[in-house]
Amino acid sequence: MKGLVYGGGGERSWAEVPDVVIRDPRDAVIRIDAVTICGTDLHILAGHVPEVTPGRILGHEAVGTVVETGTAVSGLSAGDRVLASCISACGLCRFCREGRYGQCRGGGGWRLGHDLDGVQAEFARIPFADLSTHRLPRPVTDEAALMLADILPTAYEVGVLNGGVRPGDTVVVVGAGPIGLAAILTAKLFSPAHIVAIDKAESRLQAAKNLGADVTLTPEQVPLGSIRALTGGLGADVVMEAVGLPETFEMCQTLVRPGGRIANIGVHGKPATLHLEHLWTSDVTITTGLVDTSSTPRLLDMLVGGQLDVSSLVTHRFGLGEIMQAYDVFAQPATTGALKVVLTR
Amino acid sequence: MKGLVYGGGGERSWAEVPDVVIRDPRDAVIRIDAVTICGTDLHILAGHVPEVTPGRILGHEAVGTVVETGTAVSGLSAGDRVLASCISACGLCRFCREGRYGQCRGGGGWRLGHDLDGVQAEFARIPFADLSTHRLPRPVTDEAALMLADILPTAYEVGVLNGGVRPGDTVVVVGAGPIGLAAILTAKLFSPAHIVAIDKAESRLQAAKNLGADVTLTPEQVPLGSIRALTGGLGADVVMEAVGLPETFEMCQTLVRPGGRIANIGVHGKPATLHLEHLWTSDVTITTGLVDTSSTPRLLDMLVGGQLDVSSLVTHRFGLGEIMQAYDVFAQPATTGALKVVLTR
Repeated sequence: MKGLVYGGGGERSWAEVPDVVIRDPRDAVIRIDAVTICGTDLHILAGHVPEVTPGRILGHEAVGTVVETGTAVSGLSAGDRVLASCISACGLCRFCREGRYGQCRGGGGWRLGHDLDGVQAEFARIPFADLSTHRLPRPVTDEAALMLADILPTAYEVGVLNGGVRPGDTVVVVGAGPIGLAAILTAKLFSPAHIVAIDKAESRLQAAKNLGADVTLTPEQVPLGSIRALTGGLGADVVMEAVGLPETFEMCQTLVRPGGRIANIGVHGKPATLHLEHLWTSDVTITTGLVDTSSTPRLLDMLVGGQLDVSSLVTHRFGLGEIMQAYDVFAQPATTGALKVVLTR
Repeated sequence: MKGLVYGGGGERSWAEVPDVVIRDPRDAVIRIDAVTICGTDLHILAGHVPEVTPGRILGHEAVGTVVETGTAVSGLSAGDRVLASCISACGLCRFCREGRYGQCRGGGGWRLGHDLDGVQAEFARIPFADLSTHRLPRPVTDEAALMLADILPTAYEVGVLNGGVRPGDTVVVVGAGPIGLAAILTAKLFSPAHIVAIDKAESRLQAAKNLGADVTLTPEQVPLGSIRALTGGLGADVVMEAVGLPETFEMCQTLVRPGGRIANIGVHGKPATLHLEHLWTSDVTITTGLVDTSSTPRLLDMLVGGQLDVSSLVTHRFGLGEIMQAYDVFAQPATTGALKVVLTR
């Protein structure tokens, strides 16, 4: 079989790798039918996620067909079409019992394409397959389901739910890449008064408008009259960081109102400055988080029910064997306009 | 009348000042019967609170007797014994209507001894007197009530409630000054499994033990096996910062468990480093806040009911005219062992 192998130091190759096999009774092996690339994969290639070692097959967002299950897997059978979620979960540890699967201490958490081989391959071994996959209802296409492998639950749980978006709020989303756009899409479920998207790229601001942002700004237009004007001079109720840079996190601190919330969604490789000398009296709440995917079943329901339209998030389609080219396209959104790229077998 | 006047640049004097008078129909004038000094007053003297200008009478924690009320004051009469709270509140603005009196936009918030003359004086003008004072039930002594002017509600609301302390938690309080000690006292109301106090001063660690901390550490003993050992290697559920320095805030980040909370109570004059490169996946919540004093009525109930014993927080007593000396004692806790100092007329 072939897989997309991280070579260290920015290197990657679509290479022949050993076939995956069941190693634990709770494993399943799936055939990859559709897979996508995450901004986090680019962070890995840039060396920001040092625990990913050379030789690792990347990827943590796929739809596949179950080929084989271990003897302890009870909810899946060969032939089932499943979403392979970015988060694996033992289901038994203290964190899993609280629904915090992202923090699983029993061998799950973010494992695929991280410290276990991932799903950018022809086949993949999925640990703890019962809780780490979601059987897909027939009306949900592979492509739509793929948006729920990471970006929708991440944006919804780590951005919208942690940010506590409420009706009437002014919500600012800093960074209108796939995660920021998914945050806009799912923030709308709570009927905010305004959604402000901030990004450098005109194409991403246009995508933000299409998904429901009513104000779009480039970083040069911030800080600015605009957000204060929307909010009677106070600042935003909720600010989400969806870039992962110190400067964008620091921008969030200037945009939030007293009593407001900053939800960090970005993948950070460096520390940021926290302006406690201004914020200590501000009743501000700052959250960080890894997605739990506890919302995935409900997001699937909303996909089936037509409450979520994720179709505009996919901009480019490739065959699985074209993954090297797909990475090139995904890594240059300013010139390619890429949001999510989908690869199918 | 006399008052403790900030002279700028670390200077203070007990000086003759103009008599206070009613200036607004919602004002009351009170005679100060008992008053205390806050760590925040030391921050002002150190120049960390630049909006306090020379000539300002300091102080925001007093018990007094109503002398005169404006025509719009409905709940107070001359002769009433009241707690003058650190927070004034218009009661009408959006934030007051949400109970966030500390963020009052109608002319309240932290005004006394900040941008209005305070209560370290023989008399004081209390703005919005109806909501900015609490009539004191007879069994509550002046000295006990004083602990509820700032430190108890601050520690409880900004530390314990923002930190979300729950039964069985391991709670770390960094800084065992009056605020940290009040945090320990009020954290105990939620039955944590462990309370760990961290401070440089042996006398403060002893006070922390007396108030309910079961583990006490000096900063040199942190980071350490001890907290991880208490928590199965995870870290603390709740960490409260009650010092106000970048290094203590940064220490909090090393002590909190995944999914835990850092509640900042400290008064900060400088930014701190936020280690997002470690915390981005940690499901950590960080809160800042100015006290609202919305909990003060309930804290008074608990004082009357014997659920809170604040008596050990007061270490030194002076006459009001000895306030210069009281400041000296309060500012040198390492040598004097001072926690709260009380001055009475």
